[in-house]
Amino acid sequence: MVATDIATRVWNHTFKLDPIVRSLLDTDFYKLLMQQMVFGLYSDVDATFKLINRTKSVKLAVEIDEAELRAQLDYARTLKFTKREMIWLAGNTFYGNSQIFRPDYLEWLAGFQLPPYELRTVDGQFELTFEGRWKHTMMWEIPALAIVNELRSRAALRDFERFELDIAYARAKTKMWEKVERLKALSDLKISDFGTRRRHSFLWQRWCVEALKEGLGNRLIGSSNVLLAMETDLEAIGTNAHELPMVLAALAQSETELRAAPYKVLEDWQSYYGGNLLIVLPDTFGTGSFLKDAPHWLARWTGFRPDSAPPIAGGEEIIAWWARRGVDPKERLLVFSDGLDSDTIEEVYRHFHGRVRMSFGWGTNLTNDFRGVAPEPVDGLEAISLVCKVVSANGHPAVKLSDNAAKATGDPREVERYLKIFGEPEYGERKVAV
Amino acid sequence: MVATDIATRVWNHTFKLDPIVRSLLDTDFYKLLMQQMVFGLYSDVDATFKLINRTKSVKLAVEIDEAELRAQLDYARTLKFTKREMIWLAGNTFYGNSQIFRPDYLEWLAGFQLPPYELRTVDGQFELTFEGRWKHTMMWEIPALAIVNELRSRAALRDFERFELDIAYARAKTKMWEKVERLKALSDLKISDFGTRRRHSFLWQRWCVEALKEGLGNRLIGSSNVLLAMETDLEAIGTNAHELPMVLAALAQSETELRAAPYKVLEDWQSYYGGNLLIVLPDTFGTGSFLKDAPHWLARWTGFRPDSAPPIAGGEEIIAWWARRGVDPKERLLVFSDGLDSDTIEEVYRHFHGRVRMSFGWGTNLTNDFRGVAPEPVDGLEAISLVCKVVSANGHPAVKLSDNAAKATGDPREVERYLKIFGEPEYGERKVAV
Repeated sequence: MVATDIATRVWNHTFKLDPIVRSLLDTDFYKLLMQQMVFGLYSDVDATFKLINRTKSVKLAVEIDEAELRAQLDYARTLKFTKREMIWLAGNTFYGNSQIFRPDYLEWLAGFQLPPYELRTVDGQFELTFEGRWKHTMMWEIPALAIVNELRSRAALRDFERFELDIAYARAKTKMWEKVERLKALSDLKISDFGTRRRHSFLWQRWCVEALKEGLGNRLIGSSNVLLAMETDLEAIGTNAHELPMVLAALAQSETELRAAPYKVLEDWQSYYGGNLLIVLPDTFGTGSFLKDAPHWLARWTGFRPDSAPPIAGGEEIIAWWARRGVDPKERLLVFSDGLDSDTIEEVYRHFHGRVRMSFGWGTNLTNDFRGVAPEPVDGLEAISLVCKVVSANGHPAVKLSDNAAKATGDPREVERYLKIFGEPEYGERKVAV
Repeated sequence: MVATDIATRVWNHTFKLDPIVRSLLDTDFYKLLMQQMVFGLYSDVDATFKLINRTKSVKLAVEIDEAELRAQLDYARTLKFTKREMIWLAGNTFYGNSQIFRPDYLEWLAGFQLPPYELRTVDGQFELTFEGRWKHTMMWEIPALAIVNELRSRAALRDFERFELDIAYARAKTKMWEKVERLKALSDLKISDFGTRRRHSFLWQRWCVEALKEGLGNRLIGSSNVLLAMETDLEAIGTNAHELPMVLAALAQSETELRAAPYKVLEDWQSYYGGNLLIVLPDTFGTGSFLKDAPHWLARWTGFRPDSAPPIAGGEEIIAWWARRGVDPKERLLVFSDGLDSDTIEEVYRHFHGRVRMSFGWGTNLTNDFRGVAPEPVDGLEAISLVCKVVSANGHPAVKLSDNAAKATGDPREVERYLKIFGEPEYGERKVAV
């Protein structure tokens, strides 16, 4: 007997929209940590965020229907944190600390919704801009990226037959599992999912996190995605991002204030968080200049996240800095998170193993590696370098230099001015794949 | 909103048995063709069939619970052809011929059920025997094999976690699809599914047939499985099998009759079927002796199925036989069906392409190739050489010699007698993998 489940079938075929982002927790954990600090210390600052497609050859507005994008963004704007989500945020322990979120912030967060967006199509690209208070606009980064990336996947898969989809996902699973099997050999590995922003889709990210959990057990230390962390009982992972020094630098009234901005923001951070949340992201204006002028108290922080430098060179640079300050790197942590895949993770792990604590935040190549899974190569399944960056604060242009000139963002004249102050990137320009 | 489908869930968890064989059409087509002839010409002959596990190292009764096997066999015995199955058999066109099944046979078939079985466990193996009228017992071959093989898969997969199953099937699909992609290059390929008896499971066979249909289009000419042919609108493929000459040889009253038996059965066949159903299976007592004494009228038949000979040598032998009789092999068909995989199919195809019409009946390596898909090698997922053979007719022992001494079956003294009459196998003994 085949059970005829008419109700489910009718429910399914009356879908008007299959929402990509269905919860405000479907974002990266660092966003909430940063938002709490911005809410507390920079509540009146305006910040404009903008979608930036660094893979210029991909015309997003040709691949994705603008009306569909609007429908998804509009849907995300209807979301509020649910009661059980708020209870979980208030009651859960993060990095071993309870009550990391303060009551005034949580009270405000309960009423939070994503602010309006501006969307235009120019030359086959979307101009997607979020203007308003920093504490509001900052929350668009992850849902905007996840929505655009998943709409792109959906468009690429639209012409697939049922069977081609079956094969494509079987191949993607097989490929992903080969990576997991390779990582299994690294017995002291600590790895977490950082793949929300570039994910192929929400369901695929969830599958990848389940695969890591299954294959690596407690070597999977968590996920940056708060919703997945909640649903799969993992640690929510993340600390802070480039937007903090970028906004503070943009607000600087003098060259002295500008030079001090990257450290000022870490003082702010320290006033909110402790322990494993004390991770320095040193590369916003170049790691070299950051370390040169870094105050001594930073050597007491738990670790560094060398993001845009080549991982081995960047890690060595930080270890050398600790050594000069008499700090044993074995008691410190390096978090690697830029453009990782199983081979680079293995290489970096073997290089530093035994010398320093390490963890890996695995992003795009975890949650969006669909190369070679389609019957014919499909461009729309290749992950692209899409970011959502702060571009100005209180009307002043914001700049990021990073350790890779190809990742610099901001008005060219402002970039010039910053380069004069902070110096040229020490690692030169390297291709940004994802 | 998640729809809570309580009814389906409750229905699922009240399953007492998940039947492996759910329809009497879930058998090979040649069984029905042969049964019609046996019903018409040998209605009073008794024939005993027996399960023979040629992979002695695998202890079936250790891997499979005897009670489960009984439950499945008992379930199969409850089946009757349904009304729509009977209508399809009567109304469908097979190999371009309508009304291939005669009204008297169909009328009898409508009341048919599988006869009793005898099951004992001896030294870790099942002794599974079917005694009675040939027209009844012959129908156990395919369901018995499918049931034992699938119970073995189920036992092997019982300890798999949910996630390990997901990976195993993703890998099996990926692997299967690589074979299909390879076969796609063979533009004149004609291939059909012969994988029912050794399948991993019914659902997996269905998936494999869908994969072939998807990847090869009309180069997939059909399936030997009648149920799948009906459900997926494919041709049902198959003609006759070793049991016909084996039974007639066992019934022979003299050496002359014994020598004539392999040809007598083809005369019988010709009185029932024509066209593409006129396929000679020459190897029951060795292809060499068969061809030496073969009557001239056999050269008019559509083709040969060289089964147990090495495919290229066996095919050449038949082509040479046609040539000696002035027949153009381009107007004849060779059906290859023994131990094929994508590499052997490709090799044989390239060898004979342009010289003779060919088709391939792909069995075990199509529907049961799970090598390397489990996290650790699992013996129970390796296909074994399991057959269900006629062992006696009207009390006289039945013998098969074949072109591979390793495939010989029957009482050793009888095998000796047959070897003296028909000669030693010309290709020697080769390992039987599956």
